[in-house]
Amino acid sequence: MTPPIDLAARVASLPAPPSRSFASDNAAGAHPAVLDAVARANDGHALAYGDDAWTAECAARFDDLFGRPVGTYLVWNGTGANVMALACALGPAESVVCTQWSHIAVDEAGAPERILGAKLQPLPSADAKLVPEQLAGLHPTHGVEHHPRAAVVSLTQSTELGTLYTVDEIAALCEAAHRAGMLVHLDGARLANACAALGGRSALRAMTVEAGVDVVSFGGTKNGLLGGEAVVFLNRQLDRRARTVRKMVNQLPSKMRFVAAQFLALLDDDRWLDSAAHANRMAGELYEGVRHLPGVALDHPPAVNSVFPRLPPWAIEPLQDWCFFWDWDLTVGQVRWMTSWDTSTDDVQRMVNGVAHLLC
Amino acid sequence: MTPPIDLAARVASLPAPPSRSFASDNAAGAHPAVLDAVARANDGHALAYGDDAWTAECAARFDDLFGRPVGTYLVWNGTGANVMALACALGPAESVVCTQWSHIAVDEAGAPERILGAKLQPLPSADAKLVPEQLAGLHPTHGVEHHPRAAVVSLTQSTELGTLYTVDEIAALCEAAHRAGMLVHLDGARLANACAALGGRSALRAMTVEAGVDVVSFGGTKNGLLGGEAVVFLNRQLDRRARTVRKMVNQLPSKMRFVAAQFLALLDDDRWLDSAAHANRMAGELYEGVRHLPGVALDHPPAVNSVFPRLPPWAIEPLQDWCFFWDWDLTVGQVRWMTSWDTSTDDVQRMVNGVAHLLC
Amino acid sequence: MTPPIDLAARVASLPAPPSRSFASDNAAGAHPAVLDAVARANDGHALAYGDDAWTAECAARFDDLFGRPVGTYLVWNGTGANVMALACALGPAESVVCTQWSHIAVDEAGAPERILGAKLQPLPSADAKLVPEQLAGLHPTHGVEHHPRAAVVSLTQSTELGTLYTVDEIAALCEAAHRAGMLVHLDGARLANACAALGGRSALRAMTVEAGVDVVSFGGTKNGLLGGEAVVFLNRQLDRRARTVRKMVNQLPSKMRFVAAQFLALLDDDRWLDSAAHANRMAGELYEGVRHLPGVALDHPPAVNSVFPRLPPWAIEPLQDWCFFWDWDLTVGQVRWMTSWDTSTDDVQRMVNGVAHLLC
Amino acid sequence: MTPPIDLAARVASLPAPPSRSFASDNAAGAHPAVLDAVARANDGHALAYGDDAWTAECAARFDDLFGRPVGTYLVWNGTGANVMALACALGPAESVVCTQWSHIAVDEAGAPERILGAKLQPLPSADAKLVPEQLAGLHPTHGVEHHPRAAVVSLTQSTELGTLYTVDEIAALCEAAHRAGMLVHLDGARLANACAALGGRSALRAMTVEAGVDVVSFGGTKNGLLGGEAVVFLNRQLDRRARTVRKMVNQLPSKMRFVAAQFLALLDDDRWLDSAAHANRMAGELYEGVRHLPGVALDHPPAVNSVFPRLPPWAIEPLQDWCFFWDWDLTVGQVRWMTSWDTSTDDVQRMVNGVAHLLC
Repeated sequence: MTPPIDLAARVASLPAPPSRSFASDNAAGAHPAVLDAVARANDGHALAYGDDAWTAECAARFDDLFGRPVGTYLVWNGTGANVMALACALGPAESVVCTQWSHIAVDEAGAPERILGAKLQPLPSADAKLVPEQLAGLHPTHGVEHHPRAAVVSLTQSTELGTLYTVDEIAALCEAAHRAGMLVHLDGARLANACAALGGRSALRAMTVEAGVDVVSFGGTKNGLLGGEAVVFLNRQLDRRARTVRKMVNQLPSKMRFVAAQFLALLDDDRWLDSAAHANRMAGELYEGVRHLPGVALDHPPAVNSVFPRLPPWAIEPLQDWCFFWDWDLTVGQVRWMTSWDTSTDDVQRMVNGVAHLLC
Repeated sequence: MTPPIDLAARVASLPAPPSRSFASDNAAGAHPAVLDAVARANDGHALAYGDDAWTAECAARFDDLFGRPVGTYLVWNGTGANVMALACALGPAESVVCTQWSHIAVDEAGAPERILGAKLQPLPSADAKLVPEQLAGLHPTHGVEHHPRAAVVSLTQSTELGTLYTVDEIAALCEAAHRAGMLVHLDGARLANACAALGGRSALRAMTVEAGVDVVSFGGTKNGLLGGEAVVFLNRQLDRRARTVRKMVNQLPSKMRFVAAQFLALLDDDRWLDSAAHANRMAGELYEGVRHLPGVALDHPPAVNSVFPRLPPWAIEPLQDWCFFWDWDLTVGQVRWMTSWDTSTDDVQRMVNGVAHLLC
Repeated sequence: MTPPIDLAARVASLPAPPSRSFASDNAAGAHPAVLDAVARANDGHALAYGDDAWTAECAARFDDLFGRPVGTYLVWNGTGANVMALACALGPAESVVCTQWSHIAVDEAGAPERILGAKLQPLPSADAKLVPEQLAGLHPTHGVEHHPRAAVVSLTQSTELGTLYTVDEIAALCEAAHRAGMLVHLDGARLANACAALGGRSALRAMTVEAGVDVVSFGGTKNGLLGGEAVVFLNRQLDRRARTVRKMVNQLPSKMRFVAAQFLALLDDDRWLDSAAHANRMAGELYEGVRHLPGVALDHPPAVNSVFPRLPPWAIEPLQDWCFFWDWDLTVGQVRWMTSWDTSTDDVQRMVNGVAHLLC
Repeated sequence: MTPPIDLAARVASLPAPPSRSFASDNAAGAHPAVLDAVARANDGHALAYGDDAWTAECAARFDDLFGRPVGTYLVWNGTGANVMALACALGPAESVVCTQWSHIAVDEAGAPERILGAKLQPLPSADAKLVPEQLAGLHPTHGVEHHPRAAVVSLTQSTELGTLYTVDEIAALCEAAHRAGMLVHLDGARLANACAALGGRSALRAMTVEAGVDVVSFGGTKNGLLGGEAVVFLNRQLDRRARTVRKMVNQLPSKMRFVAAQFLALLDDDRWLDSAAHANRMAGELYEGVRHLPGVALDHPPAVNSVFPRLPPWAIEPLQDWCFFWDWDLTVGQVRWMTSWDTSTDDVQRMVNGVAHLLC
């Protein structure tokens, strides 16, 4: 598709952009209920490091959410949550298996290698998902001492490519992993979006506790918090040293009540699910709005809250200047549009209109 | 001092306790202006990782505060700030010199050793301060390869024992350190309290930029933030890799505007100094209130916001049950009372009354 | 090729096997001159850690070998040499680029990640060689803080697949690396074999000093030593901390004279080159001897001292039982035959005869 | 004691010095039997990494030595042995307790912190020995998450100050450690000297297996090897990952038969004990020879193979120039004289004569 001869004019006459960008769900702000909860928690003194009523209540709420006593540890951010979970699960000379797209391998600035002192083994994957067959053959029968033992499989749900494991797929991976003597970590920075797409609260239990996951990084920041994640241990053999490990990996909030209060607001009234379901729905509307536009190529409907369209190269920069989003793979003209808890139908409609204005 | 025969009765008749404990300045909540700033920053979308207006403004404000272009990196917490600063300053096979009381050596769960891969060398000190003479002789002339090179001196201001370096003392340490080829890190989790005690904004510049400090951990959490610290590089040779190092040590807030907004509120109208000065003043009032009480032994007036009285052993637990504070050194009956930005004169008066009620 | 019906009989009637296996050059023993040198160095007392005459002489000999003052540090083994070299070259939040076949990424049990605290970035390669184009695009222009900076390129010469870089190829890689602000490490566990193949002593200088390599792991163990490697810094900015780094990575021999004496024997009379040339020649003879045998598939003549034939699957185990060698890629029936400084023409002839006996 | 007025003349007329210095037991060479064993092992090819007959025999000999099946792993050097042992014993956020004099804390260039990612906690000790009482109170009841858990006690036998634990003292420390949930590592770089002093082979079993030690660094280098140590696991829960850990900490010798052969020679005919007993005896003779000389101050007879005399300051440098030894604590004029397996009675007599010549 060649640029229209009136491209400059089309750019100049673009309608008013959406109020919110499609850059990322961490470009969104905090849910008002989260801010309210923080303000309410700002009530006099409370002992630091989690020895407070909000943190205790938060632990109980996670027990309830997962349907059994779990080990919940609130932390600052996603990289920290992943590193903390893995630090508790790894022994000496052990490695972590993940996909080539995994956040831990690609986007964490070497924090896992540095803090864990361990190798990551990214396996090839077209859709950012592993399959059980990839867990076979990781353990050589000779020369074993030259390679760290693959001891943990780290899955991301929903994935870095916006795809989803089914509950059965996760269960099959857990079974294969456990059979091979490996543990399973679930990077759930966007776990809420996955649960919203796959059945809600019962899906959460099905894809974690029931599937056999050992430890979960349960995301909050990308789902409307100011900042905060939870490391949730389902396998209670793993969190015996977790409190100190959390401090050791720079992830112990001193005024922890303010992180706990945010999570309480997130868990209240299934807000975590509703916000994620809304973000997913907005991505679906965006997909429907642009899928038939000339010049927009899309492979499949979004599974969660991101759309990865391929656009004519000449259209990308003008659209980004108008309403920001990130490049994905410019060699094929692919970009990423991500929706969030606060994306509105109006935002989506304006985005669709803008794209149509430029392309049609 | 033996327990009074009517101890039980005295305990039972203790007056109403203070509204706020004297446990720690991180048991205090957030300053209302900080919460307001966070709420105001919650306005639509902003790019993550510091590519936002609040963070840019915050960097400019730190330049102004220090009187020169500095490298400001907002992070989550104090341990993280220290580790990040040191990670930027250390080369291979180098170590960090500090005191036996230093937070990095005592209270950070081995995070420095784990993340820096480096040895700390805690030197003996009665008052949690180093003297320049201790920096001589750190570099052996033979056998050098068996010991890491002491490459960074980490000072804490105000110290973990509530003492203060004078500006001249810091300058002398910096000169001695630089002469020995070492860099100087200032752990300023309570730097505001030190500045408030020693002359305010000009004291900040005198004890950092002018004294020759290379990098500062500038505390926010203990001075009325929800949570947030700043690593401030005065020596700009050190922060060339700082952005990635921040991520690598788990300290990159994605919605950074909310950390920046907190700091903007802290720096507005010299609130950082006023809050700290208030806390210091409350410690002074507490000291004056109890110093003549029988059974209370105090060595010197508080330099900043903590008092370390020795009490009759039988009095400690009843007082803690009534208004919590931490033990310090029970072998000599010593406890720690710490004031904060929100401690009121009424809190102090009630504390004094309670102690007097029990002891007199 | 199907198994012959008389396979069992053929196996039973295999001729006498070679005296030496084709398993690896580190299955060979030490050169007699090396043992003699060790015995001669065992003469009374000498100060430990390299403060002895043998080590001083060894440093001078390496200066002579490379034609300029280099920094020579004797160490125990190849993994240690690589880790030490990289530890001196890496700063915080930096990574190492290598191929998917590189020893540091595949065969060192995670030592680099553990001891360096750094990520390795293995790039795809069919022949275990990098090309300059792969060094472009390693440094993203946005999102930079989420990824460690690729700071060192590690090349292996001769490679793990028995291939060779030409001198020009190494020079081009060094130029591309330096242009991108990267340093170049050469893993030369089998550097002698490469030099023997490419021109000897002058080839060594051409492919290291003149090409622009910054630091070399110069192999000894695989070329007839009892055990010993040298880390040789051509870029003298890098070895300022090297002595302590060597100790820190567990690589400081206390009775260093015995490692130095081995290297002196290796360097005497160009023994390092002659031994390697001999091993290369034996691989060539082996290649010529089997290349026309039915069932033996070979892609190209050996560049150095290893041959990677594909054999009928039924032939592999009987041959290994008869004269041991390692599997390489059993999915295609590929094995590795490696020659060494002590492989004899008779060993080669017996090997050829044995293979022929089984296959023909 | 003031310098004699004819000091220069005395120095000029010093008799012929000893053939061997008193610098260290690692300044000595290798025992002839060790060299012979290496030469005999240099017989054709043997698979690398310990898959050879010498290594298997060596493992059996250690089983026999300790009187039970132990896990024996041959490594390069003492620092590496200690790091490997500790890497197998430590979990995340755990620390190692030792004395302020311990080799791991003082003389290993930060290798433990770097490779283990763990804190060492050196405890004060006048004689380089711990007492069980020091293991109490290491585990705080509150604030626990701010401190790594002391998980391993590392004892050195014989110690860095030339002192000895009795068997009962080690047993009491093991009992206290295990009661506190800690493991016990024994740094036995000079364990042979301790065994020789305390009863030989049965003392070895008494102070390790029977006392309850979990893992031993069994020294070889300081007792007449070219270079080689053994990590011996008595607690077989700890060495499940040991082979890969050995590689990960740079301590896997590829031509391991040559390390194994050295140990076989050391263990033959109780040579390890005889050599150590000889070194101890020489230290005793040296002590007896100088103890009554004017100006020589000695606190107690040597327990093993080192003497720590205090000398007149003016005598130290001339003596070192004449026959080298190391300073120990020049603030009190203290030096260290160390004997080794090859120190002769003649060496001792010459040393005594030289000291007497200068002082009397």
